[in-house]
Amino acid sequence: MEQPLYLKNVWYVAGWSSDIKRGDRIGRTFLDQPVVLWRDQQGTAHALADRCAHRAMPLSAGVVEGSAIRCPYHGLEFGGDGRCTRIPAQDRIPDTARVRAYPLVEQQGLLWIWMGDTGRADVMLVPSYPIHEDPAYAWRSAHFPVNGSWQLLVDNLMDLSHLPYIHAKTIGGNPDLHFRTKTQSEKLTNGVRVIRQMPDSEPPPTYVDAAGFTGRIDRWQEIEFEPVLIRIHTGACDAGTGAYEGRRDHGFSMRGFHGITPETATTTHYFWSMATNILRDGIPDEVFEQTARTFREDQEVLELQQARMSADPDQPMIDIASDVGGRHTRQFISRLLREEATERLAAA
Amino acid sequence: MEQPLYLKNVWYVAGWSSDIKRGDRIGRTFLDQPVVLWRDQQGTAHALADRCAHRAMPLSAGVVEGSAIRCPYHGLEFGGDGRCTRIPAQDRIPDTARVRAYPLVEQQGLLWIWMGDTGRADVMLVPSYPIHEDPAYAWRSAHFPVNGSWQLLVDNLMDLSHLPYIHAKTIGGNPDLHFRTKTQSEKLTNGVRVIRQMPDSEPPPTYVDAAGFTGRIDRWQEIEFEPVLIRIHTGACDAGTGAYEGRRDHGFSMRGFHGITPETATTTHYFWSMATNILRDGIPDEVFEQTARTFREDQEVLELQQARMSADPDQPMIDIASDVGGRHTRQFISRLLREEATERLAAA
Amino acid sequence: MEQPLYLKNVWYVAGWSSDIKRGDRIGRTFLDQPVVLWRDQQGTAHALADRCAHRAMPLSAGVVEGSAIRCPYHGLEFGGDGRCTRIPAQDRIPDTARVRAYPLVEQQGLLWIWMGDTGRADVMLVPSYPIHEDPAYAWRSAHFPVNGSWQLLVDNLMDLSHLPYIHAKTIGGNPDLHFRTKTQSEKLTNGVRVIRQMPDSEPPPTYVDAAGFTGRIDRWQEIEFEPVLIRIHTGACDAGTGAYEGRRDHGFSMRGFHGITPETATTTHYFWSMATNILRDGIPDEVFEQTARTFREDQEVLELQQARMSADPDQPMIDIASDVGGRHTRQFISRLLREEATERLAAA
Repeated sequence: MEQPLYLKNVWYVAGWSSDIKRGDRIGRTFLDQPVVLWRDQQGTAHALADRCAHRAMPLSAGVVEGSAIRCPYHGLEFGGDGRCTRIPAQDRIPDTARVRAYPLVEQQGLLWIWMGDTGRADVMLVPSYPIHEDPAYAWRSAHFPVNGSWQLLVDNLMDLSHLPYIHAKTIGGNPDLHFRTKTQSEKLTNGVRVIRQMPDSEPPPTYVDAAGFTGRIDRWQEIEFEPVLIRIHTGACDAGTGAYEGRRDHGFSMRGFHGITPETATTTHYFWSMATNILRDGIPDEVFEQTARTFREDQEVLELQQARMSADPDQPMIDIASDVGGRHTRQFISRLLREEATERLAAA
Repeated sequence: MEQPLYLKNVWYVAGWSSDIKRGDRIGRTFLDQPVVLWRDQQGTAHALADRCAHRAMPLSAGVVEGSAIRCPYHGLEFGGDGRCTRIPAQDRIPDTARVRAYPLVEQQGLLWIWMGDTGRADVMLVPSYPIHEDPAYAWRSAHFPVNGSWQLLVDNLMDLSHLPYIHAKTIGGNPDLHFRTKTQSEKLTNGVRVIRQMPDSEPPPTYVDAAGFTGRIDRWQEIEFEPVLIRIHTGACDAGTGAYEGRRDHGFSMRGFHGITPETATTTHYFWSMATNILRDGIPDEVFEQTARTFREDQEVLELQQARMSADPDQPMIDIASDVGGRHTRQFISRLLREEATERLAAA
Repeated sequence: MEQPLYLKNVWYVAGWSSDIKRGDRIGRTFLDQPVVLWRDQQGTAHALADRCAHRAMPLSAGVVEGSAIRCPYHGLEFGGDGRCTRIPAQDRIPDTARVRAYPLVEQQGLLWIWMGDTGRADVMLVPSYPIHEDPAYAWRSAHFPVNGSWQLLVDNLMDLSHLPYIHAKTIGGNPDLHFRTKTQSEKLTNGVRVIRQMPDSEPPPTYVDAAGFTGRIDRWQEIEFEPVLIRIHTGACDAGTGAYEGRRDHGFSMRGFHGITPETATTTHYFWSMATNILRDGIPDEVFEQTARTFREDQEVLELQQARMSADPDQPMIDIASDVGGRHTRQFISRLLREEATERLAAA
């Protein structure tokens, strides 16, 4: 049984709420399926197959009219449920005149789409990210295209041991500190958690600049994967003030949200936000810009890595000690992919 | 029996006479076959396979010498019949030194090529288009590349119900008028004719500008397909002056010629001309420019449509009422394609 | 038994010594294999598979550190023998942590790589080119990418009868002279030699400019193929002064080195140098520039030719009289390719 490329029955990030204004529409591909995201004039966002039932024209080239989206070619209109609501110069609308509607949920600044079996879409399972609504945090978001598979992006984020190399010029900091830091990886019911702690260490320059540390600090990196997003909490408190006992509000916190949505087998939508509890002027520009610069470095790495893997996909690869978090995540994802494949076989 | 992609035994437009000057040559692909079109120094146009018999070099990269075209690599020369007429530093020219010659006919400003069985090329069957020689008309021509299959372009032209949508800004005019207009489609011996009439209607702005109508008009749209070109006659007379009884010379006529020649399965040569009987200053610039702008809108639509269909060719499509002309034409073309496939099977 | 695309067990030019400075690295593809060429801080050049054993990252995106090259992603380091010498945050280095090392020899300004069975790489078989070290000669080199197969480039160089056509504006000269010149082709133990002589002929303009001939000359063109490079010696002496009896030092000599290394099935690395015994100011700029311009014309030809052959690889081609040298070379190469295929079958 060959492993499928994608998890189907999960909620994926389809975009940021701010990506589509009222009456606007945008075409995106998820899991090889072209989708049009659009917001009707009442403000509700919808997701439909981006292909008119009549002559295959992309609806995303059309316009939103009231509570429908209109195909630009012959003027057919479709509602949020995918049913055709109007065929010009024709009275009866046949039942076959419809396009697939994908469940779409909007919450906490995010649009979540369900690309799998519609009957199994459960809005209670939409991942929660309260940081986006927490007044203690300021945040900014971005959408990066990645020319690499979604699993390579997961690997990249679950194993921060690449920081001193790729990101030597930005957030890398002292390589030796990274090497001496133990990585603990823990399997969760629906995911994997990786924890790295750097107690009583020198604060890196950005921490000093952003949070004003003057002495040594207790630092942490906490990475949590669930299908298919990653939450990364990094930060520090003054050394010995309770960072590892759960008292962190007095310290400096950077919260990274990483929505990872496959576009095709070798390209990925990367929706990320960065939040800090430094509220002086919203999230400090330098923190956001540095993060964006860092992720652009990762984009380049993943593209090069994907090129090699596409050219010779079966060549074996070795694991190293710092892969533990990435390896646990790979195993967990493989199990889910196998389960979905088995279910589909049983259903067929 | 899978349906072939192209009709082979028909005359296709290869270009405009004005495309190749005396002593000049141009490389074009028709039905996946690279062809060099060239005009010898006596003025006769020829079409040969665009690949030297010796080392596969495109002859279109060479030069015309007298009554031959010379390969740029090693200097072999070929006449209009495809036979090699000269091999440098060699006396004998073997009989195998030849390239395929395609029948080519030049008339009424057009070059017509026969890509099928040479023995069946009948010059009496070359489609006639006397408008190009009629002193009552002025015309201008163009060659547009289309990133869509030839059948999508045929669909587009046989069903003008897309006018109020794609061409809302140019020739679309009042959508309601279009919706209320009945479309009559009629099967002909060798084609399909679609007729739409708009009696006693308001003249659209271009009609007023170009022809000076001051009152209501009797309008018509007449579209005729034969393999593989489309003639479209649109126009109007003052209401009640005989437009529908064949008396039209006193009115305004726009005559569109649409030569549709497959380049590959998903790209098409679109050779079109627009003629009017307004002779004040040749064809009015605004009519030609508006037509060109309109067809560029169609180019964009067909490219988007083709992308979706190529990505998922087997997904079903629904028909709507206004498709009647396009549907008749599809059926007629399918019959011809099947007939050609059956003939080839019988011959094999 | 289908003929393989490439000869494997031969030394190929991988580049010019001057292509990689100490501590530098460059990624190139040879015979479809990505290779990183790098020079350690001691000055020795190495060739490794350009794909980290860990996560497939191209090592050519990394940096040279001392006597190792470091992967830019997670910092693994590899020595010239392909063994991993360092894994960050890990003590033991497993034996599987290695990448393929390709034998690389540097001599006479050239880097030679062995892409075949490593056990059969014999440094005594590296082709010799003493002209690059001969004080009687000045030379300059270049690296041209060619969008055509390596065999098309071999054909091009073994049959100079294309000179009066493609290179009419540069080194072509009088076409009639070329046509009257007999081409002798001779099979060697490990190659093919083609000789053309033009005794008592007019010197072409470049010869007059570069060497100052005032009367008639004895010209020669001597082309020698061995797998897979071509040496071309062209030149002239004053007529009747012994050019054809081996006394040429008093004349004008142009020595062309042509290293031909397949990149992929349809693209080729073309490493060439041009040397002359005119030492006034090194190799005359106009000779080098004219040669480069000439080879750029060949690049265009091969790209067009390859496009036609890729589109229809099985269409037959005819041979002409002047192909004799090219034909002998094709036959010789085919024999070597068959021998390698047979050996591989026997070994399997």
